[in-house]
Amino acid sequence: MNAAGLERVRAIVFDVFGTLVDWRSGVARDAAPFLAAHAPDVIGRNGLAPYEFADSWRRRYSPSMEEIRSGRRGFVRLDVLHRENLEAVLPEFGIDPSSVPPVELDDLTLAWHRLDPWPDVRAGLARLQTRHIVAPLSNGNIVLMVDIARRAGLAWDAILGAEVTRAYKPMPEAYLRTVEVLAMRPAEVCLVAAHNSDLAAARSSGLRTAFVPRPSEHGPGQVTDLTPEQDWDAVVSGLEDLADVLGV
Amino acid sequence: MNAAGLERVRAIVFDVFGTLVDWRSGVARDAAPFLAAHAPDVIGRNGLAPYEFADSWRRRYSPSMEEIRSGRRGFVRLDVLHRENLEAVLPEFGIDPSSVPPVELDDLTLAWHRLDPWPDVRAGLARLQTRHIVAPLSNGNIVLMVDIARRAGLAWDAILGAEVTRAYKPMPEAYLRTVEVLAMRPAEVCLVAAHNSDLAAARSSGLRTAFVPRPSEHGPGQVTDLTPEQDWDAVVSGLEDLADVLGV
Repeated sequence: MNAAGLERVRAIVFDVFGTLVDWRSGVARDAAPFLAAHAPDVIGRNGLAPYEFADSWRRRYSPSMEEIRSGRRGFVRLDVLHRENLEAVLPEFGIDPSSVPPVELDDLTLAWHRLDPWPDVRAGLARLQTRHIVAPLSNGNIVLMVDIARRAGLAWDAILGAEVTRAYKPMPEAYLRTVEVLAMRPAEVCLVAAHNSDLAAARSSGLRTAFVPRPSEHGPGQVTDLTPEQDWDAVVSGLEDLADVLGV
Repeated sequence: MNAAGLERVRAIVFDVFGTLVDWRSGVARDAAPFLAAHAPDVIGRNGLAPYEFADSWRRRYSPSMEEIRSGRRGFVRLDVLHRENLEAVLPEFGIDPSSVPPVELDDLTLAWHRLDPWPDVRAGLARLQTRHIVAPLSNGNIVLMVDIARRAGLAWDAILGAEVTRAYKPMPEAYLRTVEVLAMRPAEVCLVAAHNSDLAAARSSGLRTAFVPRPSEHGPGQVTDLTPEQDWDAVVSGLEDLADVLGV
């Protein structure tokens, strides 16, 4: 494909949840034994409950960040929001949060640190790194990104994103401060994401954009982000494909 | 050696200038052609001028950070201070800063991005990373650390330090916020440094400490930091030695 807009790109930054890692399967995998222990009748009635649990937990992600984006709350990292959101989602599955030892809730919160990458990610990222600075630009905090990367064997040049910029996407500061940290011009930085809204915000700040659809991020019934909604600088099937496009 | 204090350490963070990279030789290497072009008589009189240039530039490092540590100036990253300090040091070598094209000053400032590691660093770091999270805890900014690492083949899990904490060492915030980002207790984090003062500040914040003397950091006449000034948790000859001590 033609990707002339990417010619001057020196750094490639990545959305992570959904774009690089399969959060839904990973959270469901860790939620399954937790639900079996604390809500056995729910699991008995509904084998898909771990996936619904992951979906419910994730559904609270954006509203909880919105408190911070709006300025109603000072910045706290995503691990803190995930932990709070976990307590909020438990009653939906018939679990009283106060009945669960805090250490178990802490451990389940770390499910987000144990997510697996899509099959193209590790090798594609290694190829892209040969000629470009590569870093996550995620709303996930630094140690969360580090744990995912060490487990999956991903090699980052740096961990950028919300905890460095103290701003959650899609606020412009999340993109612009990342560009500033890299000491580059916006057009020298490309965001890779599976979500049109993330790319739209990055483009508004002058970054280049590459769309990689992940049609099973939300499971078999996914209806969002199946196709590009703008003429992104690249539309690729995965990171190996992006490396091909960039000739690395 | 006995390093019982390091048993619970999960993350190893590193001072960089002097501890991991030889800033004096690297800056002198890039200063030499610059001085030959802009101050040929200085070079003609004194073959050591590039080293003296490096020393003078470095001497302005701590005072320039002190403006920020004291609160008299808001946080700016080290690249900015290096650029300002370069302009301040040029007259000492008979060079009028306004006579040099800014692009040349920008490029010479990047000498700090092109520093080489001591011989034990690359292999030692790779061994340490197998069992510990490894990250720089430097006053250098993120892209400066990235450029050094990519050039030298150093694999970091994350780039921590002044630009993440918005505080310059040896302020307690530089260490404590790093511990917080890692979501660890201070005693689970070990600072590796060639400077007793850095280790003393880290210890005051509860971190573990490993001293690696670099007796030629300041050239053949070095008189400081040749020996440990406290009973640091480890005293090692290099990063391979530290890996031996930790059994990795």
